[in-house]
Amino acid sequence: MTPWAETTVVGKALPRVDAYERVSGAAVYTVDVSFPDMLHLAILRCPHAHALVKKVDAQVARTMPGVHAVLTHADPEANVVLPYPSWIANGPPMRLLDLHCRYAGEEVAAVAAETPEQAREALRTIRVEYEEQPFVLDAAEATKAGAPPVHDQGNVVGAPEVLQRGDVARGLQEADAVVEETYETSCEIHATMETLSSVARWDGERLTVWESSQGVFDHQEYLAKALSLPLSSVRVVCKYMGGGFGSKAELSKHTLIAVLLARRTGRPVRSVLTREESFLCAGNRPPHTMTLKAGVTKDGVLRAIDFEGVGVVGAYKDDATGGFLAAQLYACPNVRIHETQVFVNAGKARAMRAPGFPQCAWALEQAIDALAEKTGIDPVELRLKNLPTSFQWTQPVPYSSMGLGQCLTEGARAFGWKEARERPRSSGPVLRGVGVAACMWPNPGGPPATAILKLFADGSLNLTTGVSDIGTGAKTVLAMTAAEELGVPPDRIQIEWADTATTPYAQVSGGSRTVINNTPAVRAAAVEIRRQLLEIAAEELKKPASELLLKDGQVVPVDEPQRALPIPQLKGLQQRRVLIAVGTRHPNPPKLGLPFGVHFAEVEVDARTGEIRVTRFLAAHDSGRVMNRVTYENQVFGGVTMGIGFALTERRVLDRQTGRVLNANLHDYAVPTALDVPAEMTCLPIDPHDTECNTTGTKGLGEPATIPTAAAVANAVYHATGIRVTRAPITPMQMLGLLARRRS
Amino acid sequence: MTPWAETTVVGKALPRVDAYERVSGAAVYTVDVSFPDMLHLAILRCPHAHALVKKVDAQVARTMPGVHAVLTHADPEANVVLPYPSWIANGPPMRLLDLHCRYAGEEVAAVAAETPEQAREALRTIRVEYEEQPFVLDAAEATKAGAPPVHDQGNVVGAPEVLQRGDVARGLQEADAVVEETYETSCEIHATMETLSSVARWDGERLTVWESSQGVFDHQEYLAKALSLPLSSVRVVCKYMGGGFGSKAELSKHTLIAVLLARRTGRPVRSVLTREESFLCAGNRPPHTMTLKAGVTKDGVLRAIDFEGVGVVGAYKDDATGGFLAAQLYACPNVRIHETQVFVNAGKARAMRAPGFPQCAWALEQAIDALAEKTGIDPVELRLKNLPTSFQWTQPVPYSSMGLGQCLTEGARAFGWKEARERPRSSGPVLRGVGVAACMWPNPGGPPATAILKLFADGSLNLTTGVSDIGTGAKTVLAMTAAEELGVPPDRIQIEWADTATTPYAQVSGGSRTVINNTPAVRAAAVEIRRQLLEIAAEELKKPASELLLKDGQVVPVDEPQRALPIPQLKGLQQRRVLIAVGTRHPNPPKLGLPFGVHFAEVEVDARTGEIRVTRFLAAHDSGRVMNRVTYENQVFGGVTMGIGFALTERRVLDRQTGRVLNANLHDYAVPTALDVPAEMTCLPIDPHDTECNTTGTKGLGEPATIPTAAAVANAVYHATGIRVTRAPITPMQMLGLLARRRS
Repeated sequence: MTPWAETTVVGKALPRVDAYERVSGAAVYTVDVSFPDMLHLAILRCPHAHALVKKVDAQVARTMPGVHAVLTHADPEANVVLPYPSWIANGPPMRLLDLHCRYAGEEVAAVAAETPEQAREALRTIRVEYEEQPFVLDAAEATKAGAPPVHDQGNVVGAPEVLQRGDVARGLQEADAVVEETYETSCEIHATMETLSSVARWDGERLTVWESSQGVFDHQEYLAKALSLPLSSVRVVCKYMGGGFGSKAELSKHTLIAVLLARRTGRPVRSVLTREESFLCAGNRPPHTMTLKAGVTKDGVLRAIDFEGVGVVGAYKDDATGGFLAAQLYACPNVRIHETQVFVNAGKARAMRAPGFPQCAWALEQAIDALAEKTGIDPVELRLKNLPTSFQWTQPVPYSSMGLGQCLTEGARAFGWKEARERPRSSGPVLRGVGVAACMWPNPGGPPATAILKLFADGSLNLTTGVSDIGTGAKTVLAMTAAEELGVPPDRIQIEWADTATTPYAQVSGGSRTVINNTPAVRAAAVEIRRQLLEIAAEELKKPASELLLKDGQVVPVDEPQRALPIPQLKGLQQRRVLIAVGTRHPNPPKLGLPFGVHFAEVEVDARTGEIRVTRFLAAHDSGRVMNRVTYENQVFGGVTMGIGFALTERRVLDRQTGRVLNANLHDYAVPTALDVPAEMTCLPIDPHDTECNTTGTKGLGEPATIPTAAAVANAVYHATGIRVTRAPITPMQMLGLLARRRS
Repeated sequence: MTPWAETTVVGKALPRVDAYERVSGAAVYTVDVSFPDMLHLAILRCPHAHALVKKVDAQVARTMPGVHAVLTHADPEANVVLPYPSWIANGPPMRLLDLHCRYAGEEVAAVAAETPEQAREALRTIRVEYEEQPFVLDAAEATKAGAPPVHDQGNVVGAPEVLQRGDVARGLQEADAVVEETYETSCEIHATMETLSSVARWDGERLTVWESSQGVFDHQEYLAKALSLPLSSVRVVCKYMGGGFGSKAELSKHTLIAVLLARRTGRPVRSVLTREESFLCAGNRPPHTMTLKAGVTKDGVLRAIDFEGVGVVGAYKDDATGGFLAAQLYACPNVRIHETQVFVNAGKARAMRAPGFPQCAWALEQAIDALAEKTGIDPVELRLKNLPTSFQWTQPVPYSSMGLGQCLTEGARAFGWKEARERPRSSGPVLRGVGVAACMWPNPGGPPATAILKLFADGSLNLTTGVSDIGTGAKTVLAMTAAEELGVPPDRIQIEWADTATTPYAQVSGGSRTVINNTPAVRAAAVEIRRQLLEIAAEELKKPASELLLKDGQVVPVDEPQRALPIPQLKGLQQRRVLIAVGTRHPNPPKLGLPFGVHFAEVEVDARTGEIRVTRFLAAHDSGRVMNRVTYENQVFGGVTMGIGFALTERRVLDRQTGRVLNANLHDYAVPTALDVPAEMTCLPIDPHDTECNTTGTKGLGEPATIPTAAAVANAVYHATGIRVTRAPITPMQMLGLLARRRS
């Protein structure tokens, strides 16, 4: 099965299939799941960055109105060591309620009560004696000799991760121009519109959890493991979600606490994190410190990249590496990536939209910009000179398509790069500049992925998928895939999704692989439905199935179109009532189909206030086939918006005195609003018509869309001001300081 | 695939898989489906047996507290002509709210309000002007010349249905003994523990209905047709049910009203019929008048059966035939079945557990009893002389197995028939007797039926089926089928069922075909799962799949059992996470596997009071393989209990003056209680080890279990008293009258 040559549904700008539910309020999010006898959870959190719990007195709480259960360390089930998510290798023990609290926000006790207010009221009566401990908040502090250890093992997570090819030292010698700089990025919070939420309900020995979850099957496995239950006794359901960005790929403690208290009380328990809690304990993009040295020949050919990164995992283990992009984005014979990860007394990291990559792009793409300046080569041209020809792993793997060059040239043309770049620098207080940055993303997707299609007797369809639609429009794209193959309008497709009991297996919606994993599975199911349908039609029309087409709800004989038969008139279908097919994702081909992208930013820097406005933006992406022009743009504009926040405003602030998060709310933590992004944002899809990557010709988009944004902004700031800002975000305060320093 | 030779799970007496949910109150019945913004429906019903609505004034109702919507004839959507269910050919127009009310209980108006109390309160303020019409309540009245017509077409439903083979007149001439008698049965109500209930909810243009439904796919099709929606826009869900007996095979008007008012208000609407309403408008077993003439040779060979029946459909069309049993139960060369159906001004009939068959058995099996007496042949012996050798249709169809003979002989032996029969008749006031009656049921099941199985990575299972478990234990039997085939304990199987959006197609749970349709589908899915699993195992164990067994959660090489590998250790399974398979029901073989059964009853008739007690009962059934001994007995004892009610107590009473139902409650309508059935009830399964009927060797049970009960009781009453009671139920009043008449 090769990708479609021409399409009638796929690629169009169609509204989301669930648009009505989302805008009308009919959509059932986890917080809308309600049971008449449901209890509500509130969690007492440690106010100290590092403390030992000496005593918990919950006597009064147990007698408070509406309270049904209190969980403390004294309860054996609270003292369990939790599994880490499957993608995090063994970290230090992580207990449900640990007497050793390692960050301000760690769980200490919990109450389930009739109302959320009663639960919170009861929390206030719990008296906890803490013995405060010295703490560390950043990598520099944490790695000093004699620093207070977050864990017994010390503050370095493990041996450094090193990735090497060629000889960096020799490469640097061969280079005519070398740059070296240390870059820093801040801790960014996922800040999903919908906070983390769960409802847990037991029926005897069987558990159902409604969870705002990026991967219900993954969470089913996690819960089964944590509770020692067979998978068949655990059901995880996720209906509508208001964003995930990685924070909901991992199951949180509050869900497990809800599960335990639901079991104890025999009543469903709902747990919804407050906005503040979601800042404390629901993960973050870890802060990074990166020293990058790179060299090119005078012709602009990259000879060496040396990347040394330090990532901060927080109080428990997670992945805080980020150098991979530096090894893959450009053809470079000599690369060394060296990464250290560090514990500190702060909330744990979690995968966040392209984990590590925006950080690395912040360093790499500014370094390339600096090299361009040093060699006098245009930054777009310099990148074009170093296009990768293959995926550069132990064995090079050829690309099925590689659109970086096209993204650079077509993007530059559409953005008016040359003209903007050559515009003379302003001498007034508002400085203008343009910058460019590129990216790739290394996930080609792959099996397992499954989809079930049912064709009803009237020709309408039911699509059943295990995929969580985290807000990206995945359901719409999956429906369009079936629609394309079977000629059924998307609004005649009923979609059921993300329920381990009623839908087939899907991987976590993350890694930009939802579409590339699951559209081929849906297509395979649709092809099988068509086979069954044409087999029935062949008998009734007395034609071989190979001479029949499916078009506009009819079976059409190729040579006798006047004998076309509407699907509902097929007697064999009426007898069988419903046709059903399971489609599975094919394994990946030997070539790799990976997405690439290039962002172009135009900024204004107000030299009087230090404020930076992004005034124009263009994102050119090779993410393979555009499945839906609307959701494609949604993804790109969302990614760019997030990248602008990363570049300019977003930063978790820890109080140096107490270790507490000072801006755990959407007022003080500044996510870009509509007013903070340019009115002129352009999404330029570059479709390389990849017929080899998978059967729908798709590549990932969700993550590439945010990777190079911040670097493009920083490069534009450099172009405007001549100041290389190495620390993200570029707040007005920082910018003013740098401008002042230059003046002085 | 031939049926299992030996079984380890199937056939055992296992508790129901949903026993915990059912007894703990955790089970979600339709009445438990709740939404925060849900409205409640109340329906105003015509108090007259026949009336024209002249005016409806609902002004006040609309202003009553909590009222959100009122539906009357004035609303265009209430004036639609409804489709009949698929199995009822065109009847006279049936409108949602008809200005012409044809029975006391017909829908006139409806209110949706915040609470059920508010809805009912508002109903009371609706003023309706009726013009009363003359009415007819029974077949005799209805068919008199000049009788008031229920419909314009008159009171006879259509042309008589006639079934004929041989020459009845000649057969009667050849007979040495002939009996002729007119029998009557009363109108019986389904009286399900859970009354009919629905919750309707719209999400934009998409409708979900939670319904206490015997067939969600059938109801989906009905709703789509009634509302002109694609099937993909209609979802019907049925979770737990408290009985159906046929009354929930058909969708009721209250559901459609809830659907319309949910659409109008934009809020979910719940409708739960009261017990009284369920007596008025939720169907019934139609009353029957049957004249049966039959003749045998002096050797006891049946020569002719002539059956003339009149069935009462009620105010709208339904199936009220019942003679088919007389044509099939015994080998008889000359048969004539002649059936007329009649409209009256009373609630419409609906399929009820073996529609028509208990009525026909009431006539046929009493006639056989009378012939036995006339010829001096024991009733068991007489039946043994007339065993059918094939299904007697236009072309005889051979049986794959036919256990009637075994039921008779083994049943008689186990019951102690001979001894009891020969006991001298009591001379005291309490008279004792025993009776026997037989039955068959003509449904062999067949496709379409589908099941989905998922094997999780730990070897536990998920079973997804479209089947409604109406209370029979269908889910348990389906789980046991998968358990048998895959060696997984039933409690490690998660079961999802009866949801048109998430489960595969199943026919209506009715006609005693749930097990015979769906166990082969589940088995086919399990066989496919095993194939996939052994294919994976073959690679890892380096053995051909054909040399591997699945046992106790392990893959066992036949020749090297010590190398057995637990399922969770299969790497290929871990990679795929979940195996999935769709199983479909095979077509029926050329031979027919039909169930047969024989009931033996012992009664005591108190000549002073006319009261009859059934003191002992044995039911011998050939329903093929016993899938679960517990649910098998449940079905049989339930069927017998219902049959005892039909024989002795159950009867809808219409007031001759007003046409209203006088006993529309469980106090005045006497369903047998535990005290009304014998303490000694024996279930004797006769398993003919049928390897040809289908791949699980099963035949239907739900309906045969109730068909011959009443006739066996009547025959026992005859044996005790010498009085042939032709009118069911045999109330004390009737019995006393008959005893008195004999004395006089």
